[in-house]
Formats: sequence, structure tokens, C-alpha cells
Amino acid sequence: MKIGLAQINTHVGAISTNTQVVLDTARRARDDLGCDVVVFPELALSGYPPEDLLFHRGMRLRVEAALDSLLNNLEGIAVYVGYPEYSDTAIYNAAAFLYNGEILARHRKIVLPNYAVFDEKRYFQPGEGATVIEFGGLRLGLTICEDVWEPEPVLAAKAAGAELLLVCNGSPYHLGKQQSRERLLAERCRSTNLPIVYVNMVGGQDELVFDGGSVVLDAKGELRYRAPAFAEGLFAIELDAAEVPQQELAPLLPLTESIYAALTTGTRDYVNKNGFQSVVLGLSGGADSALTLCVAVDALGADRVHAVMMPSRYTSAMSLEDAELQTQSLGVRYDVLSIEPIFETTQSVLAEVFTGLPADATEENIQARCRGILLMALSNKLGRLLLTTGNKSEMAVGYATLYGDMAGGFAPLKDCTKTLVYQLAHYRNGLATVIPQRVLTREPTAELRPDQKDVDSLPPYEVLDPILEAFIEKDYSVDQIAELGFDRAIVGRVLEMVKRAEYKRRQAPPGVRVSGRAFGRDWRYPITSGY
Amino acid sequence: MKIGLAQINTHVGAISTNTQVVLDTARRARDDLGCDVVVFPELALSGYPPEDLLFHRGMRLRVEAALDSLLNNLEGIAVYVGYPEYSDTAIYNAAAFLYNGEILARHRKIVLPNYAVFDEKRYFQPGEGATVIEFGGLRLGLTICEDVWEPEPVLAAKAAGAELLLVCNGSPYHLGKQQSRERLLAERCRSTNLPIVYVNMVGGQDELVFDGGSVVLDAKGELRYRAPAFAEGLFAIELDAAEVPQQELAPLLPLTESIYAALTTGTRDYVNKNGFQSVVLGLSGGADSALTLCVAVDALGADRVHAVMMPSRYTSAMSLEDAELQTQSLGVRYDVLSIEPIFETTQSVLAEVFTGLPADATEENIQARCRGILLMALSNKLGRLLLTTGNKSEMAVGYATLYGDMAGGFAPLKDCTKTLVYQLAHYRNGLATVIPQRVLTREPTAELRPDQKDVDSLPPYEVLDPILEAFIEKDYSVDQIAELGFDRAIVGRVLEMVKRAEYKRRQAPPGVRVSGRAFGRDWRYPITSGY
Repeated sequence: MKIGLAQINTHVGAISTNTQVVLDTARRARDDLGCDVVVFPELALSGYPPEDLLFHRGMRLRVEAALDSLLNNLEGIAVYVGYPEYSDTAIYNAAAFLYNGEILARHRKIVLPNYAVFDEKRYFQPGEGATVIEFGGLRLGLTICEDVWEPEPVLAAKAAGAELLLVCNGSPYHLGKQQSRERLLAERCRSTNLPIVYVNMVGGQDELVFDGGSVVLDAKGELRYRAPAFAEGLFAIELDAAEVPQQELAPLLPLTESIYAALTTGTRDYVNKNGFQSVVLGLSGGADSALTLCVAVDALGADRVHAVMMPSRYTSAMSLEDAELQTQSLGVRYDVLSIEPIFETTQSVLAEVFTGLPADATEENIQARCRGILLMALSNKLGRLLLTTGNKSEMAVGYATLYGDMAGGFAPLKDCTKTLVYQLAHYRNGLATVIPQRVLTREPTAELRPDQKDVDSLPPYEVLDPILEAFIEKDYSVDQIAELGFDRAIVGRVLEMVKRAEYKRRQAPPGVRVSGRAFGRDWRYPITSGY
Repeated sequence: MKIGLAQINTHVGAISTNTQVVLDTARRARDDLGCDVVVFPELALSGYPPEDLLFHRGMRLRVEAALDSLLNNLEGIAVYVGYPEYSDTAIYNAAAFLYNGEILARHRKIVLPNYAVFDEKRYFQPGEGATVIEFGGLRLGLTICEDVWEPEPVLAAKAAGAELLLVCNGSPYHLGKQQSRERLLAERCRSTNLPIVYVNMVGGQDELVFDGGSVVLDAKGELRYRAPAFAEGLFAIELDAAEVPQQELAPLLPLTESIYAALTTGTRDYVNKNGFQSVVLGLSGGADSALTLCVAVDALGADRVHAVMMPSRYTSAMSLEDAELQTQSLGVRYDVLSIEPIFETTQSVLAEVFTGLPADATEENIQARCRGILLMALSNKLGRLLLTTGNKSEMAVGYATLYGDMAGGFAPLKDCTKTLVYQLAHYRNGLATVIPQRVLTREPTAELRPDQKDVDSLPPYEVLDPILEAFIEKDYSVDQIAELGFDRAIVGRVLEMVKRAEYKRRQAPPGVRVSGRAFGRDWRYPITSGY
């Protein structure tokens, strides 16, 4: 039996487009690759995750029409494809096994994740019991994603006679995820003595990125095939009964490379799926905007990227030189618009009500917001999505101006700490030196007042970032973080800053999730908190 | 047996403060009212809903210390109080029945809501089985909130011998909620032939408002006591065995009055619990900002409110006059800051890059953002929370400028349609005419270009608002809404606008939830959507 792995990039809500992709891919699997069966990702017809779109009354009709279209327009190949199944009282996260105009079997996801970025118990009723179907002389155990993250469902499929497990998935990327998937799948193979065909989707959906990396393992848990990460494609593997031959394994990406690929994939899909032709961003001469520019160019091509430098009296010559240099080496459109006139006018309008009050962060925020106004005006007038250039460390402690440098529709580096930003910039410069060295060696500064440095307001990033990681990703208390070797007073101060910045994060644009816990769907802290 | 109903206002995360409130209230119930038992709301010790704070490693220690403090510092009265209970592998939404230093019983919430604004399956494991305790010669069935929204748990308590049901609640307000609570509770009384003592919390927590309205019903489901809505307080009822005497019923608030009370309660608690002394807002001469100003003054007092009019070349004399008039009648600080100089300077900075491009919404957005800069500068410099004045109709269709009129920390009217805004304004003027009549009779306009009217861009609000309501609150499809008697093309256009504005809503400040579905926790539509 030859099985196709359809590692496709679906578009949430675009049901007829997704259905056409499924039809085309299934026909290619049949005609070009001679597959008997082709496996698609979880909820491929609706896209994943469809969120509250599932509740919309039109959804059921559209999905049922899509399923009919597959049944009526496909012959000679079996398809295992995910879709939301509606009964009159419930919705199921289901997948159908279709062949020659008939639904031969239907599996309803048994284990519904409701943690981290997942809210599936909000939408779905769980399925019950194993689904095993005989096809082409082989008994196939049908499962969906989280079903294989618990031990029971695959054991139940085995008990029901399965000889091979098919899993369709919507498994989002984060650092190290492919490794944990493969470890887990090997365990499931060994516990059942069954081979597994695991198909994951690829592409970005708001803050989530799906990295593909579909795999096939044999009954002993040996990895027999791995599809490339972050690439759409149709792949095939020929099974001799339930024996799995060794095929070429696409490489496991090194960590930094995999994160960079997640950033470009997430950015490209956000821009394209939302119908933007181009992006605009503010370039400051610092590391964050320099890396964001690289991500944008690598995601979209230089001709779709517009960089704007917006100097003030505090902008150094170095910043101006380096910003221009980078735009030249990447070949993007570059404009320089001074914020000085707007900054001065704004201060004069406020002079009377501010009489007698000393200068403070207000004046710094005004500068950042003057930049926000200019960038949003360019975005509005030219129809370009504004990319926000901030990083996770800033977002955590609130070292960013709401409606200023936080303005924008998408924030590629939102889940990258400052430490990771430097790591990624060095990785990108390793491919070709596009970011001037000085950008990566100078001391971080917001350039909003004379001789300002980030360390005037924050602990150095080599202290700040591990504290943030322990708090954000591990929920460690002040005591627990102090025990890791950090000054207790600094830890307390950092955690207090994180708490106080919640209101800013609530108004931040989405960005690409690359860590185990991003500021987004998997961070649901109250704003009002006396903790 | 005399039972106290402690309708308190807790503060999420402020565990020692909440614990002190519980101690003080319990002592008052004992000493002043002679109660034998006092019932507190759901999760009273942590505040409700604590969201991801529950995962923080310090939470367990703090809650256990709070519980110890109750056990060690209270005698002579039994307390039924909610708190998060931690085992080594799970968290429970629990409530303890404490008396003279001992936990006599502990109930774990059985039914965990995971719909609308609720995510309890993200945090809690469900409890199992009824909890019945004999105290003062009466067998008390202990339950928590959602437990009584399903038929089984109270029947189980009855079967286990309960003679009276105690329910501690964190039941958020929306329009008509008290009526549906009372209907439901009457049904539970009748199905079990048991009286119910139902205690709800009061106060605002981010977008949620809890309206109190604690009640006692007899075994036949007759309402015997109703505590006032939107008011903190300790109330008591004396039961003769399980007989419930009739006491005075606080009035059910008329709908408009109850919404207005929700707005002031939510705004007051957001401002106070987040430590702000005062608020600032932009006053335009239109109905939304006029009503927001009333809400702010009624929530906080005139001396904590600062109104700013920011005219441009398009601002009418009527707007200037009416804004000033209202601030005089309410007695708030009023400043007038023209945006013209900043608007002109911004346009001149952009003139070169905009060469040859016609004027469009960009110039309107720049004006709104000039106002955003000024208001945020005042907020930053004077330490005043900026209130956003937009309504739900605008928020739905995206008729608002991100970082412009959408700027701010809290949006009191976020869940009020334009139709409701007028209704509330007339209600408020009925108490005392503070909003000039013209503000409520003139045609709605954003005053961002000559002779602009809302109806140039939107259907009239009497058409728009019912379409929005059918879509947002009932998930109706285009066809279903058209069947209500609306033009199909208009419905399609409105729903498309709602879809396209998702990215704006994602960056909007929180506001008070008053409808069955607000743009907040219970609206989780994807931004990227091809639906």
C-alpha cells in the first residue's frame, strides 16, 4: 500500500479554497505518485484552529458542501481528511475516510486539548472508542492529533485490530517540538507494536506557526521517513503490508535555523493570507528592527518591503548610517522622515497644561508616538501592513510605548527575547552579512533622551532574559527564581514590571509563537491583579 | 439557624486583602447580626476569575496561608468560602466549610463552565459527588455556581440527605441575567423540594462585572429574599429548620438602569483596583463621549475626571459649545487643545512621500491619532487613566481609528451599541439634565472631513445595530439575518466589515461586558480568516 502524506497549508475559514487544495493534492497523489491512500491534516477543510468561526451558523452548511464535493469529485484513491462534524447538538473534531464517493469511516477526536494555546473543549464534544477500518488488505487505526499524546487511544485501536495507525495533525511549532513529537510517537509505536503515519500541516495562522515535519515510524518506533520542516509538499511512502522501508530523512533543523524559519513562515502567511501586497516598518539602527527587516525580506522579497528611518535630535549618526547601509545591502525602499517638527509642535500644544511639570517618560513616549503616526499614515495611504519590531523582553517588562513602537499589525519578534534576537541576527549574517556589525555590538538604546541605554531602566539582558524565561515559561515564583542564582530584589522588581505591563500586552499586535509560552493565547493573566 | 450572605467585592490576586475582608465580614456576621453561618462567593480568597495566576507557583502557598489564617483567627461562626484547592497533580475550584479552626467539609465544583467567558477546564479538575454536612441540626448541601446550572448535582445533594442548599457564586452580569438566575434557581428548588441560599459577588474585574443580587428561595421555589444589585453588603436571613420566612426583596433594576449601574461599577473598580487616582477623556460634542463622561463622573466623582476637547478645522461650533456646557454642568476640569498645529505639521512631514496621492481615510486617521497623542501625553504626565469613548457598533464594523480614538486603558461603552448609548444617555438625563439635548438629537458624525456623517459610511444605526446583534449574539448567517427583514446586500457588507475589523478589536482596550456576547473573552474569532 502506498500512502501519501499531504503536508498542506490551509487557510482558516476559506473552505472552498481548502477543499480545492485537498482535491488537487489527492489527484496528484493518485496520478503522479500512485498512492492508494492520502492523509491530510486535522480540520483541513475548515483550516486550523477555526476558533469561534465554528459557532457561526453558516459553517455547518459550508463544511457539509465541501465534504460532498470531495465525495462527488474524487475516485480511485482513499482520503483521510479532517473537518468539523456537526450534529444537531454538538460539534466534533472529526476526520473522514473517504473512498469512491463513500464515507467508509469517521473518527471523532477523543482527547481534546484545553491547555496552553488550545481551547478545544470550548468547541468540541469528545469522540468515544477506537475507529478501525479495513482498506487494501490492511486494518487502519484512525486517530487525530492529541489522541496520540495520551497512551489509551492507540492501545484501544490496537485492541480493535489496527495494523497501522494514521494520525492527522494540527500541531503548532515551538522550540524543540519536532524532537518531542518524534520521541512520543516512538513510544506509541513500541507500546502498540504498530507503525504510525503522522501528517502535520504547515503555515502560519495568526500567532501560530505549523512546521510540517510529517513522519513515518515502524512498529519498533524507528523513524523511517521525515518530510521537510516549514515546506508544503506531497510525499509518499510504500508499505509492504505493515512493514516500513527506510526512506530519506529530511534534516532536523538546528534550533536557531528552525526559529528563523518559523518567523519567516508566520510573517509570510500573515501578510499573504490577510491580502497585503507589501509591508512597512520603522528602522532605528538597532538590532530588533534590523532583524525584523531581514525576516520581512526573506519572507516576502525585497520589493514588498519598505523601511523608514525616523530620526530625532537623539538619533546618533551611527544609527542613520547603519540603517541606510542595511537597506542598501537588502535592496529595499528606504525613506527618512524626521519626527522633530511633529515632536516640537506636540510639545508646544501641551506647553500650557504641562507648565511647571518636569520632563519625564511622557516626552519619550511622545517621540515614539510621532513615529507611530507616520508609520500608520504610510500603512494607510500605501496599503502596507505595518510590522512591529519589538521583542519579547521589552513586551514582558513594558519597555515599549503603546501606540508608539508597539503600533502595527504583526510583530514578527514578539516571542523572541533580546538574547534570541542577537542569536538570530548572527545566524542571518552567517548566510550573508546584511546587518552592519555595529548594530549587533553597540549597547542597546532606545535613543529617546541623551545617552540613554536600556540598562538605565532594565537589568542587563543576560540577567533579565533568564529571569523572564523562568517566570513566563515555568511559572516560577520569586523564591524559585532567586534559587537559580539571581538577586532576589532584581527578580522581584522584574516580576512586578511584568505584572504592570499586562495592559500594554493586551493591546499588542499578534506575533509568531516560537517558545513554550508566548504572550498570546497561552498567556491569560488578568490586567487587574493585586497579586 | 441564621445565615449571612456576604456579597463582597474581592480583588483578583490580592489574597491577603481578600482574606482580611472575609475575616472582618465573618466577625460582623457573628457579632452584629448573630449569624450561625456566613456564605461567601466563589473563589473569594483568590478573587474571581484568577485566570493564569492559578498556574503561578506562589499561588498555592499564598492560598494555603490564607486558609490557615481563617482557621486560626475565627471562632463562633461557620464560614462557607470559595478558594482554589491545590493537590500535587491538580487544581480544584473548591469551597471549604470552616468552623472553630477546623475544615468540616470541602466541596469541589463538579460542573466546570468552559464556554462564553469561562475557561474553567483550562485550570480545574472537576469534583465528584455530593457534599453534605450536618451543622446546627440542619443537613447542608454544598455547591458552587455552575453546579446548580445543571440538574444533577442538586439532585445528588438531595439524595445524600441535604435539607438546604448553599451556593457560592462568581456569576457575571449581563442584560437580564438576574431574571434567568432566579428562574433557574426556582426550578432547582422545585426539582429537589429544597430551599437555596445563593450568594454572588459584586464588583468589576477587567471586562467582567459581577452584580451581586444574592437570593434565598424556599423549597417551593418562591423568592424569599433578594439582596440589592451592584452593592456590597452583608445580609442575613433566619431559617426555622428549613422553613424560609419572607423578607424584603430589593427591587429588580429596570434594564437601562441595570446596564448603567454595570458601567459605573466596572469603570470604578477598573480605575481603583489598578491604582489610578483620576481619569482623562476626550470630549467631542457627540453622544459617546458625553455618556462616557457621565459614567466616569458617576463612578468616580467629578474631581477625579478631566475632560479635553481637541478641535480641528472640521469641529463645529455646536460641538465646542456642547462639550463645554456638559463639563460645566458636571463640574469637571476641562481643557481645549487644538490638534490643528500637529495635524498640519504631520501632513507637511509626509507631503513628499504622499506626492500625487489623493486624500483619503489616511488624513482622517491622522487627526484621530493627533488626539490620541495628546490624550496619552496627559495620561502619562498626570498619571490619569485614559478612558476610551467608542461604542460597540463602531468596534464591530471598525469605524474607529486604531491608536486614535481607540487609544486608552479602559472603554466603558465598548459593549454598548450606538442605539443603547442613546438609551443610556436619555436615562441619565432623566435623573438630571447634564448632557445638552442637541448632543442627542444631532446626526452622528466623526467630524473628520467637511459635512461628514456616520451614514456616509454605515447603514443607519436602527438597521446596523439589529444586524450586528443577530450576528454577534446569535451567530446568525447572512441568510438568517436577511430573513429577519434586512436587505441581503447590506447584511453581507456589514458582516464583511465585522470580519475585516478583527485586527483592530484585538488591540482594543477592555471594556464593561453588558450583553450576552461582548468583544472580549467570549469573542474568539481569528484575525486571519478566509470565511
